[in-house]
Amino acid sequence: MCELLAMSANVPTDICFSFSGLMQRGGNTGPHKDGWGVTFYEGKGYRSFKDPLPSAQSPIAKLVTEYPIKSQSVLCHIRQANSGAVSLENTHPFTRQIWGRHWTYAHNGQLKDFKQALPVKYHLPVGDTDSEHAFCWLLDQLHVKYGNEPAKTERVFEFVAELCEKINKLGVFNLILTNGDQLFAYCANNLHWLTRRAPFGQASLIDAEMSVDFQQETTPNDIVTVIATQPLTDDENWHKMMPGQWQLFCQGEQLASGQVVSTYHEPYLVCE
Amino acid sequence: MCELLAMSANVPTDICFSFSGLMQRGGNTGPHKDGWGVTFYEGKGYRSFKDPLPSAQSPIAKLVTEYPIKSQSVLCHIRQANSGAVSLENTHPFTRQIWGRHWTYAHNGQLKDFKQALPVKYHLPVGDTDSEHAFCWLLDQLHVKYGNEPAKTERVFEFVAELCEKINKLGVFNLILTNGDQLFAYCANNLHWLTRRAPFGQASLIDAEMSVDFQQETTPNDIVTVIATQPLTDDENWHKMMPGQWQLFCQGEQLASGQVVSTYHEPYLVCE
Repeated sequence: MCELLAMSANVPTDICFSFSGLMQRGGNTGPHKDGWGVTFYEGKGYRSFKDPLPSAQSPIAKLVTEYPIKSQSVLCHIRQANSGAVSLENTHPFTRQIWGRHWTYAHNGQLKDFKQALPVKYHLPVGDTDSEHAFCWLLDQLHVKYGNEPAKTERVFEFVAELCEKINKLGVFNLILTNGDQLFAYCANNLHWLTRRAPFGQASLIDAEMSVDFQQETTPNDIVTVIATQPLTDDENWHKMMPGQWQLFCQGEQLASGQVVSTYHEPYLVCE
Repeated sequence: MCELLAMSANVPTDICFSFSGLMQRGGNTGPHKDGWGVTFYEGKGYRSFKDPLPSAQSPIAKLVTEYPIKSQSVLCHIRQANSGAVSLENTHPFTRQIWGRHWTYAHNGQLKDFKQALPVKYHLPVGDTDSEHAFCWLLDQLHVKYGNEPAKTERVFEFVAELCEKINKLGVFNLILTNGDQLFAYCANNLHWLTRRAPFGQASLIDAEMSVDFQQETTPNDIVTVIATQPLTDDENWHKMMPGQWQLFCQGEQLASGQVVSTYHEPYLVCE
């Protein structure tokens, strides 16, 4: 299993605190030693830092921890390989373009028989992971359903949730996905989230001896939502997501949420 | 105008020396102050470092100069904005997937009326530069012509050269393009290249007080080709490319080259 981390905020915010905790799980307090990656949005552009090295020993991870890049949308992943070799092309997050935006994706879990069950045509995998393959299929399905013009945001993400439920039938599919504006999460079995807003308090990392007093670091109008596989702090109120549940955030605020009811049956949309 | 730099090598090679010279042109010895970016391939995966800040002052450029990432394929760009705002999404190089590989692209020059002349459908621009738009059009044309299976490598790049010649009619289009294996360059008016191989000698940067004795840094089997807008050293034999000329390199060796003869006429391939 891997560890996921994502952030959505209404002001550019650094993720150094949460990232510091997560990186310890890559070889120190956790077994996730097969690479890590983080993607920061800045407007419609993004920066990705990735390494197939364990995050606890990576000089690039150290750089990211020490160089506070502020962003409103961030996605991180640390990997314990169960499908695909340990290599840069298999390292999450994955980013692809659709509808003139960069979409970034990371997956926790594993999938069986994904090549047969999830045929792809337009968005083709570069590496050989189940995760990247499922991302390509998901984007192909969006392309086939909506063409070059997406529908209303919430409707698109309801459809993404239905796609997640189908992928999840092949194994375990915890997902975080962002286009830089919206942040979407689908829970197969293991995801937590919390929203920090005024009045801010103190938080202490579980995985490192580090505390932060958010009142010193924020303004009263800041709203920051963090999603993680497991809670990163032991003194905040994390919401545990239920299997099949999805959440959609924008600028730190919850935009929509739902529980997928199985509605789709084979045959599925086919790329022509 | 912008500055381009690319490398193709038969062994993982660091580009610190050439990069050090190029970065000085971003605000110190050159006027290219509107951002810079560099993409390194590692197998089929890649790392991009980008900054809309002038390269001569960028902490991320400093990191790249000091942290010797070794790669067989590298593409760099420093920008003087003439189309599109100074922002991360407008910062070269641009990377997109086609045929299960990441293709990375950078452009020097400027184009007029590109939106009308170069309609796009599958690969849509995220930013608003002429450069990214032309890249999207080029990939759409490859998709329309070859579908999901590319033809023989040299034939594909001959076709790319023909596409470049069409784009170049809209203004000035010096191009460097790589899929991690092959490195392609098309010259509108300003590109130079050289191949370093045994017996290696000494080279001195034009833009910084820095020399390197490649004999100390290499093995006798190393072959490294560097492409740049302007020669980076003053004591090596750079080849000046002619207008309409293209070059294709793989593992440092010249694979093919040619001179485009105008053969294409409107109407061009149209995405359906």
